[in-house]
Amino acid sequence: MSTVNREIHLASRPTGWPTAENFRLVEAAVPTPGPGQIVVRNQYVSVDPYMRGRMNDVKSYVPPYRLDAPLDGGAVGEVVASQAEGFDPGDVVLHGLGWREYALLDATAARPVDPTLAPVTAYLSVLGMTGLTAYAGLLEVAAMKPGETVFVSAAAGAVGSLVGQIATLKGAGRVIGSAGSAAKVDRLRALGFDAAFDYHDGPVRDSLAAAAPDGVDVYFDNVGGDHLEAAIAAMNLHGRAAICGMIAQYNATEPPAAPRNLAQVIGKRLTLRGFLVADHGHLREQFVTEVAGWLREGKLSYDETIVDGLDQAPEAFLGLLRGDNLGKMLVRV
Amino acid sequence: MSTVNREIHLASRPTGWPTAENFRLVEAAVPTPGPGQIVVRNQYVSVDPYMRGRMNDVKSYVPPYRLDAPLDGGAVGEVVASQAEGFDPGDVVLHGLGWREYALLDATAARPVDPTLAPVTAYLSVLGMTGLTAYAGLLEVAAMKPGETVFVSAAAGAVGSLVGQIATLKGAGRVIGSAGSAAKVDRLRALGFDAAFDYHDGPVRDSLAAAAPDGVDVYFDNVGGDHLEAAIAAMNLHGRAAICGMIAQYNATEPPAAPRNLAQVIGKRLTLRGFLVADHGHLREQFVTEVAGWLREGKLSYDETIVDGLDQAPEAFLGLLRGDNLGKMLVRV
Repeated sequence: MSTVNREIHLASRPTGWPTAENFRLVEAAVPTPGPGQIVVRNQYVSVDPYMRGRMNDVKSYVPPYRLDAPLDGGAVGEVVASQAEGFDPGDVVLHGLGWREYALLDATAARPVDPTLAPVTAYLSVLGMTGLTAYAGLLEVAAMKPGETVFVSAAAGAVGSLVGQIATLKGAGRVIGSAGSAAKVDRLRALGFDAAFDYHDGPVRDSLAAAAPDGVDVYFDNVGGDHLEAAIAAMNLHGRAAICGMIAQYNATEPPAAPRNLAQVIGKRLTLRGFLVADHGHLREQFVTEVAGWLREGKLSYDETIVDGLDQAPEAFLGLLRGDNLGKMLVRV
Repeated sequence: MSTVNREIHLASRPTGWPTAENFRLVEAAVPTPGPGQIVVRNQYVSVDPYMRGRMNDVKSYVPPYRLDAPLDGGAVGEVVASQAEGFDPGDVVLHGLGWREYALLDATAARPVDPTLAPVTAYLSVLGMTGLTAYAGLLEVAAMKPGETVFVSAAAGAVGSLVGQIATLKGAGRVIGSAGSAAKVDRLRALGFDAAFDYHDGPVRDSLAAAAPDGVDVYFDNVGGDHLEAAIAAMNLHGRAAICGMIAQYNATEPPAAPRNLAQVIGKRLTLRGFLVADHGHLREQFVTEVAGWLREGKLSYDETIVDGLDQAPEAFLGLLRGDNLGKMLVRV
């Protein structure tokens, strides 16, 4: 075991789009576990859009990242040292201290995963927070019913691609996705989306109207901005939007103006509801059972974009914001 | 009985703020009832903000008003001729053909009201659609719970003043209202609001933050625009907004930009829900029982601004849009 740990620190807070200069690779000593603690050598770390918000120094639902300290986020790795009962070297665990090679944590903050049941990366994506976000947002927050038309933005992303497939598996009448390239649109069709469009091809409102001639009942929002405005315009009476993310504005330096048609929520009796997966842990058991079943039966696919090397994590994150990824963006440490 | 009927027609569709020229007083023959029909001499007609939307030629939840035809809306009056069983001259009924002196309607579209139980105007305001809007929006759509902080905009209006009082009667911890003049703010304090402010006195966001130091749990929106943006900024985790109206933009010729902080719905897990009272008829019986009880016990007040003369109805409507009214705006025919 190396004695040198490598960590990605936040060197400065981005204004607008982040750059490589906002991050710094720092070498430190590999930590030693105290009583009740373990040290984990991370194998994969998760890179997620919500991390952009934590780079700002604003009060939010999670504290901002500190300057000159390692970033954090979901990770899976192997226990290499343990002073905690029930954890032995070689165990694979899921935890929240990514963006570093070796993580020191209280064993209570780690959850063992079984690498024989699924690839370890699945615990960061389809069987992890990403999958539960899709499942809870679609079925609990938006309360999708069989026969309804579902629209999901950023549909080739980690969450979006699961939303669309779960919608179909749960009996949606029509599933529509938007994405940022022709290749992604092709992928959505291969995943079984009934319609898909590249949002660069014209106003989202027009593309959505063409794809949803009978309107939209459920909108799963990962983008905000013009996508949310288009969805409000297309939504049917009593439509519901589960607001998961607004990636279109994470790097905005001016607050966005959209949606200009918000008043339509009255006449159409629409519900717009923001949510965080952390509030939906009560669904986890049902989610794992159902999703693991679909995976076993080959009914659910999940894409991963894996970038090699912890030092490439900032670039992976920048690529995620640009939309370079198909499915879940991960870094192999 | 006069043989001349007077009706207010829509002469032209307003662009931006309506003017007197958009309306026309037209004389016609007093109608004669056919089988199953009644003729009602209207005593009071209701003037409501939603009518502005119906003056535009756009698809919405109710059809637009037709040009060169009488406007319509809530009214109470006395049956003067009947060819319908169960309806006799002298009966007082509530119906939907206001903006005219004499209304011809199928008896099935009229609801008898008891003028000995409450003043007939109450059936257009506190005991009618206005009251049910406040009751359903606050208690069902926003699901207010005892102890919560409630903010209502246009709080001196017909719906808003009831929202605030019902919130207090149902155990709200703190009730805050905004209005458009110092006199209205005084009236809100007299009605028992815990805090009230004139939205002209500074940015709504600042006034609301000062009035709600512990944040807002429920927002009842009658205004939209800067009020909705301020409410989103002030809302606590899991806050709910019942979106009833957005009068700030009814006369806008450009779509409004607010709220620029919509992304906060995610981190705060907010729900924004538009509603129409028509969906909440199942609450009517419970509503009437409860509200009539509060009225009897002197616990609930309601204001009315009554304008005399059907020919003054357009001016009453323009005054409503300007905020001239305290409580319900009515025209005595």
